[in-house]
Amino acid sequence: MAMTAGQPLRADPTHPQWARRSSPPAALDAGVVPSYPPPESDGDESWVWSQIKAEARRDAEAEPALASFLYATVLSHPSLDRSLAFHLANKLCSSTLLSTLLYDLFVASLAAHPSVRAAAVADLLAARSRDPACAGFAHCLLNYKGFLAVQAHRVAHVLWAQSRRALALALQSRVAEVFAVDIHPAAAIGKGILLDHATGVVIGETAVVGDNVSILHHVTLGGTGKAVGDRHPKIGDGVLIGAGATILGNVRIGAGAKVGAGSVVLIDVPPRNTAVGNPARLIGGKKGEDVMPGESMDHTSFIQQWSDYII
Amino acid sequence: MAMTAGQPLRADPTHPQWARRSSPPAALDAGVVPSYPPPESDGDESWVWSQIKAEARRDAEAEPALASFLYATVLSHPSLDRSLAFHLANKLCSSTLLSTLLYDLFVASLAAHPSVRAAAVADLLAARSRDPACAGFAHCLLNYKGFLAVQAHRVAHVLWAQSRRALALALQSRVAEVFAVDIHPAAAIGKGILLDHATGVVIGETAVVGDNVSILHHVTLGGTGKAVGDRHPKIGDGVLIGAGATILGNVRIGAGAKVGAGSVVLIDVPPRNTAVGNPARLIGGKKGEDVMPGESMDHTSFIQQWSDYII
Amino acid sequence: MAMTAGQPLRADPTHPQWARRSSPPAALDAGVVPSYPPPESDGDESWVWSQIKAEARRDAEAEPALASFLYATVLSHPSLDRSLAFHLANKLCSSTLLSTLLYDLFVASLAAHPSVRAAAVADLLAARSRDPACAGFAHCLLNYKGFLAVQAHRVAHVLWAQSRRALALALQSRVAEVFAVDIHPAAAIGKGILLDHATGVVIGETAVVGDNVSILHHVTLGGTGKAVGDRHPKIGDGVLIGAGATILGNVRIGAGAKVGAGSVVLIDVPPRNTAVGNPARLIGGKKGEDVMPGESMDHTSFIQQWSDYII
Amino acid sequence: MAMTAGQPLRADPTHPQWARRSSPPAALDAGVVPSYPPPESDGDESWVWSQIKAEARRDAEAEPALASFLYATVLSHPSLDRSLAFHLANKLCSSTLLSTLLYDLFVASLAAHPSVRAAAVADLLAARSRDPACAGFAHCLLNYKGFLAVQAHRVAHVLWAQSRRALALALQSRVAEVFAVDIHPAAAIGKGILLDHATGVVIGETAVVGDNVSILHHVTLGGTGKAVGDRHPKIGDGVLIGAGATILGNVRIGAGAKVGAGSVVLIDVPPRNTAVGNPARLIGGKKGEDVMPGESMDHTSFIQQWSDYII
Amino acid sequence: MAMTAGQPLRADPTHPQWARRSSPPAALDAGVVPSYPPPESDGDESWVWSQIKAEARRDAEAEPALASFLYATVLSHPSLDRSLAFHLANKLCSSTLLSTLLYDLFVASLAAHPSVRAAAVADLLAARSRDPACAGFAHCLLNYKGFLAVQAHRVAHVLWAQSRRALALALQSRVAEVFAVDIHPAAAIGKGILLDHATGVVIGETAVVGDNVSILHHVTLGGTGKAVGDRHPKIGDGVLIGAGATILGNVRIGAGAKVGAGSVVLIDVPPRNTAVGNPARLIGGKKGEDVMPGESMDHTSFIQQWSDYII
Amino acid sequence: MAMTAGQPLRADPTHPQWARRSSPPAALDAGVVPSYPPPESDGDESWVWSQIKAEARRDAEAEPALASFLYATVLSHPSLDRSLAFHLANKLCSSTLLSTLLYDLFVASLAAHPSVRAAAVADLLAARSRDPACAGFAHCLLNYKGFLAVQAHRVAHVLWAQSRRALALALQSRVAEVFAVDIHPAAAIGKGILLDHATGVVIGETAVVGDNVSILHHVTLGGTGKAVGDRHPKIGDGVLIGAGATILGNVRIGAGAKVGAGSVVLIDVPPRNTAVGNPARLIGGKKGEDVMPGESMDHTSFIQQWSDYII
Repeated sequence: MAMTAGQPLRADPTHPQWARRSSPPAALDAGVVPSYPPPESDGDESWVWSQIKAEARRDAEAEPALASFLYATVLSHPSLDRSLAFHLANKLCSSTLLSTLLYDLFVASLAAHPSVRAAAVADLLAARSRDPACAGFAHCLLNYKGFLAVQAHRVAHVLWAQSRRALALALQSRVAEVFAVDIHPAAAIGKGILLDHATGVVIGETAVVGDNVSILHHVTLGGTGKAVGDRHPKIGDGVLIGAGATILGNVRIGAGAKVGAGSVVLIDVPPRNTAVGNPARLIGGKKGEDVMPGESMDHTSFIQQWSDYII
Repeated sequence: MAMTAGQPLRADPTHPQWARRSSPPAALDAGVVPSYPPPESDGDESWVWSQIKAEARRDAEAEPALASFLYATVLSHPSLDRSLAFHLANKLCSSTLLSTLLYDLFVASLAAHPSVRAAAVADLLAARSRDPACAGFAHCLLNYKGFLAVQAHRVAHVLWAQSRRALALALQSRVAEVFAVDIHPAAAIGKGILLDHATGVVIGETAVVGDNVSILHHVTLGGTGKAVGDRHPKIGDGVLIGAGATILGNVRIGAGAKVGAGSVVLIDVPPRNTAVGNPARLIGGKKGEDVMPGESMDHTSFIQQWSDYII
Repeated sequence: MAMTAGQPLRADPTHPQWARRSSPPAALDAGVVPSYPPPESDGDESWVWSQIKAEARRDAEAEPALASFLYATVLSHPSLDRSLAFHLANKLCSSTLLSTLLYDLFVASLAAHPSVRAAAVADLLAARSRDPACAGFAHCLLNYKGFLAVQAHRVAHVLWAQSRRALALALQSRVAEVFAVDIHPAAAIGKGILLDHATGVVIGETAVVGDNVSILHHVTLGGTGKAVGDRHPKIGDGVLIGAGATILGNVRIGAGAKVGAGSVVLIDVPPRNTAVGNPARLIGGKKGEDVMPGESMDHTSFIQQWSDYII
Repeated sequence: MAMTAGQPLRADPTHPQWARRSSPPAALDAGVVPSYPPPESDGDESWVWSQIKAEARRDAEAEPALASFLYATVLSHPSLDRSLAFHLANKLCSSTLLSTLLYDLFVASLAAHPSVRAAAVADLLAARSRDPACAGFAHCLLNYKGFLAVQAHRVAHVLWAQSRRALALALQSRVAEVFAVDIHPAAAIGKGILLDHATGVVIGETAVVGDNVSILHHVTLGGTGKAVGDRHPKIGDGVLIGAGATILGNVRIGAGAKVGAGSVVLIDVPPRNTAVGNPARLIGGKKGEDVMPGESMDHTSFIQQWSDYII
Repeated sequence: MAMTAGQPLRADPTHPQWARRSSPPAALDAGVVPSYPPPESDGDESWVWSQIKAEARRDAEAEPALASFLYATVLSHPSLDRSLAFHLANKLCSSTLLSTLLYDLFVASLAAHPSVRAAAVADLLAARSRDPACAGFAHCLLNYKGFLAVQAHRVAHVLWAQSRRALALALQSRVAEVFAVDIHPAAAIGKGILLDHATGVVIGETAVVGDNVSILHHVTLGGTGKAVGDRHPKIGDGVLIGAGATILGNVRIGAGAKVGAGSVVLIDVPPRNTAVGNPARLIGGKKGEDVMPGESMDHTSFIQQWSDYII
Repeated sequence: MAMTAGQPLRADPTHPQWARRSSPPAALDAGVVPSYPPPESDGDESWVWSQIKAEARRDAEAEPALASFLYATVLSHPSLDRSLAFHLANKLCSSTLLSTLLYDLFVASLAAHPSVRAAAVADLLAARSRDPACAGFAHCLLNYKGFLAVQAHRVAHVLWAQSRRALALALQSRVAEVFAVDIHPAAAIGKGILLDHATGVVIGETAVVGDNVSILHHVTLGGTGKAVGDRHPKIGDGVLIGAGATILGNVRIGAGAKVGAGSVVLIDVPPRNTAVGNPARLIGGKKGEDVMPGESMDHTSFIQQWSDYII
């Protein structure tokens, strides 16, 4: 994703952590992969899709009560994007927005935009490697409302860019109702995103979210006032935003920064710094860390520091 | 709406800001309108409805994929209240509460209570003038779950007042499930209300909310303990409550006050004051401001002050 | 529920408060009941079910528009567990998870696990006695999404224990979508639980929640980082957790403790202590109190203390 | 219904049989009622509606499994036409023709056309008095697809007369699919009609059916060739048409005539005559009979005659 | 089934044809089985169920697009009666008769009435052995609306016998709408029944149908007039009734008789005789035939005879 | 369609009638078109589709209540085959066969088989030119269950030919339930087919139907006995089969023949001959006729002859 917000938000691509971020869980020699996943490579998609099918087949066999669901959503489809289009269409349809219409829309959008498909694959890899409760790729594809909300958003974002705004907004609205995740179609979201639990996430119109960001539930990337214009946060690569954090205004959260749960952030947070509290204060960060917080999901390593800071 | 909670919550009707609040976006000489919208005037309803139809017609033409939806929800209806009744019925119905039953209920309630219709119109005007992301009246009518939740609440409130409590509670429950907005039917809500994003809003039984109030998502107007009785907040006219704010107990938030995002408020907030933090502290306010925060949507002008206060 | 986390989390069973906790609202001589409700007694179930039917019958008569709903959900069923199974199945079904499949699953699970049924009864008694807005047992059974989410979780928990993990996770996902309550099936939840309003509650995989706990909406019992293992909070009996509180990591909230609304808790809270703020501080507690906060629902008695503490 | 086809199709109103035809089953002194039911009287509607409600209430009490259905379809409604509109809307709706839209249409049509309501009442009385398998008025209202198809047709006929042809044809199509009864909206159908079993009935565009006619299943009133114009049968008052009979072309079946099951009729049948066979022959009739065959439902009294005729 | 209509309708159990009728298609030594299938034996049920599962598994593997359907309807169920109950409930449900209610009803009825289950098995064997277009047991179970209509009828018949008449009639009505097969719940239907194609079959209240009867589509077993009482046909064992045949009145069609397509039968037909034409004439029969026509499905062997007869 | 049954069933392509059969209703100089519609030409498809859209647009404007339906089914689609796929999918879907799955299937089949699309266009032209009640192409596309059943059959036929038999049979079953039209997927059906009214049509496995055939409702092309093999009728080009006719066995109905309503045909009918009665007799035909009866829809010109024959 092309971040418009400049360098500080970008992770340093030569930093050792990039070598292994989001590498497939089982890949041992990921260190030789300089940038993973490669942009719009089809390789990951095939591999992830084969994993999903294998998981679904295993579960269908072990659990007959779920087999019909698994065949309908995964095993009857020739590709990940068909499966995803089917699943989203059946989740987001309503009595006035029929599933066939949405299915058509998702199939066409995913076919026309390989980057949207690649981002979905990166999100699956992210959930699998970052969330210890993630039982598999199929689990994420089928059950993570955060994952599904982001995929629907990416299609809405494409529509928005094509000036099909009424349709984009209708999609946003269905996602907000069905998944309780409200992302404005104009917001630019990177790849390798994990919206964990996801309920209540709100991301505003001019927000930008980098790659490999992890956002917990109840997080707001909100605006200020009713002025039109660039008024929402810019979130750098590899950022971790804890549950219930509220970030307001056109502030910059630098690459590799961490925002504590429940924080209210109204100021810029420099790269690899941690902001906590209401209102949020900066409490520094361990510069030597190899792993980006958006990937380590380390919510609480600042506790000691925080205690120090506060007392 | 008749506020039971006395004068401090009411905005001063002679204050210059009232002259232009909620005036239709395009109206230039609104200054001569002393109180807008006039109670139960049909003029705004007609004007807003004609706008909605024009927007829907424009979108239906530009986006064939959405035309069926727009005809079903807007263009096939003779009036705003029919359109609203249809849309709510199809959103809130379930396998055990059929859409035709709900449609009947909404049509009858809206027909019998012009003030409920007038309040819906005021809410549409509020969303249009306060929310920069609001793409039009039709966008709000069709896609804002906060708007829809409030309209359903008003019908539930009417039922509650008629001692049809089981039905009112069933309606509350459907709204809580479908829109993730939980407003007790007994709560009294004014007009010109904007529930922005709306996910997770909870408003308790004895809460009172004045006119022209803006409430962001995750806001709680909650009770304290399990005592029966008047135990929820009273929110004055023109108040702005930021995302994730929690206001607990029978406290009074004065007209034109502002509650910062993520605040936990357990105390009264005087008119035109700002409360921030957890627990919330008062950090004053600019008395000279002409515009009520509930309308300016200015969430963050207190940052400077806050910083001052804190440091 | 067998708490694995040891004594401090357990309430002292000889403490006088236990004598009357969760006793049926109308029972006068509950003091002689040493432990209520008795494990897996059928007595409460029968009594509560007869109350529910009486309430539903009264409402069906008074409100013809609701009669069909009440007959479908309550009055056509021979027992509470059938009614509950029906209601859950129709709430949680989707186009790919049919209601008959879910109904089968709930009927079989409730029949095979009397403790799940008994816990549902205890939850109904809890809502009735603790929530002043609860209009009756039927109101809770039919309309409280927190109640329904917990019952569905208990079935998912049983499935998880039987290594039917894919089905358990699918159930969790449906509950997260429909009720916006996300409880990992592995989490151990006691009985006499009140999830009030419930929107946005998140409870992680290794969390343990004792008996007679009250949890308001937007509460997170979350993990830390992406390490596998015991990483979520342990909540003792009788704890009250206020709206929007975030408790992270394998911390212990002792029996009878209170967590203030909006608090971010990263530390242990001793029994009968109160934690408030972000980050949360301990502000003591009244040791002489007879009633557990999880039952008194007293959210704000600490305000005086807090003010003292803070200033 | 104003028959356009002249006197021979009309029953002689002074004939003694009219005195008691279609009188309410329990009415003893019906002989004094010269013409029953009186055109557009509201008296029968009230009486029948009170019977329906009494039957539904009795059944709901005796059969809890059906109570929800009976409340939804009958007992929650204030009038017969509301009940009928609800039932038809929920039967005929589809994913592209929503129930609320159809409900609106039926409510409006029935309100505006008392004669359509009166004809529905006459049909209910006809089914009750002629069909020995009819267990009650509610049974007919709820379960007879012939009854429901005719009521929907009457609304389509009204729409056709108002030149709302596309909607009338859409309604015809839904009736043909749902009830397997295909009546062109232009066809003119009298009152006191019994379509017994009804599957496969086809009635063409220029067909006219008098009052008090009984038509069994698989009956065709069909056209000839592809010429436009008056090309379908004219069926007089009180006619009985047996199962599987096919009547083709602009032929006249006189008042009180009988058409045997399986007959293929291409010729006029004089009043009170019987036509049987393929091709149909006239085999006379008992002129002294007091009761019209359309009301006596005597399908087989001609057997003896027929045997005579054949041998 | 206990035929009330006496001996002539019963097939002679010592007749050689009984030795092999309805024997399982693959059974070679069926000749030694004197009466097949044995009443209420569980053996056939197990065998047929294992065949159905094998067929469904084969088809699910070969046709992923159908796998979800096959798992939902067959492969997720532990027994034939559960599968049947599920399938019927999902076919016959409507917006006012929920699938869970019907499922409950079918599960309970099939569990309580082994003879209903045994008759279903006999019907499956009948379709498999008599209908050359029957591709397998699963094909019949899932796709034959005649089979499904008869099974639903048997449950309605049980309800009727229990005086649960309103529910029985509601079931009849749903079957008539969904399958276009209208069988009065009081009608007594034997086992080993094949309703081939089934559209338009009508069977009246006092009709009795023996065992091993084959009835084509559009067949009417109708009454005469509106007299209450025993007024419908009695069909003997092994009878074959051709497409579109209409049999009216309390006539007896003897065991092994054949009724030609399109016939209108108003007279008794002696055992092993053939009736054809409109009105039907007897044209004799081959007395030496070993196989009952209801099983041989030989519709047209009478053509030669008929020609003879006619010319 | 390649008729396997040899020349007598084929119409003479040099015969003058072919020059104008099925020409578009408004084309005046159709005489110069030697064979219409040209096989698999795209020209007709474009023309018909533009007509359909124009009709739908006109109706949507005139009838707002139908606009949503018309946009969903016609106006939002880029081509006739997409519209048809959408409409069929939404008609034929069930709780266990989702609309998206069927939509996928129809889209893929229509895209891969231009001849299926061309046949659909020919059917639309046939209905428009032969059925005086046909109000337009859109009327036929949207409302004629005979038309929709035939299109679904063609897709099932393609599946059958690909040995996807389970899916083909499932499709047949849904068509039989939804439209009451039961066509075995193996049956070979030509183009320019009109199934008028269509209820109850049954066409067996080895039946063959030529081009430009018109078949009324309740018509059976049935087999004889339970022998496997070629056992169903062969219907030549341009044949007209009247309502309720039953044709049994491997008989040949020659090109341009006519079968009277209610006939039972067990014998070959020579080209341009008429068969009527039960059992059917040949009553000659007018050899000089220019127009095929399948196109003139002249059901009753034989009446005079018949009368002569009979008397």
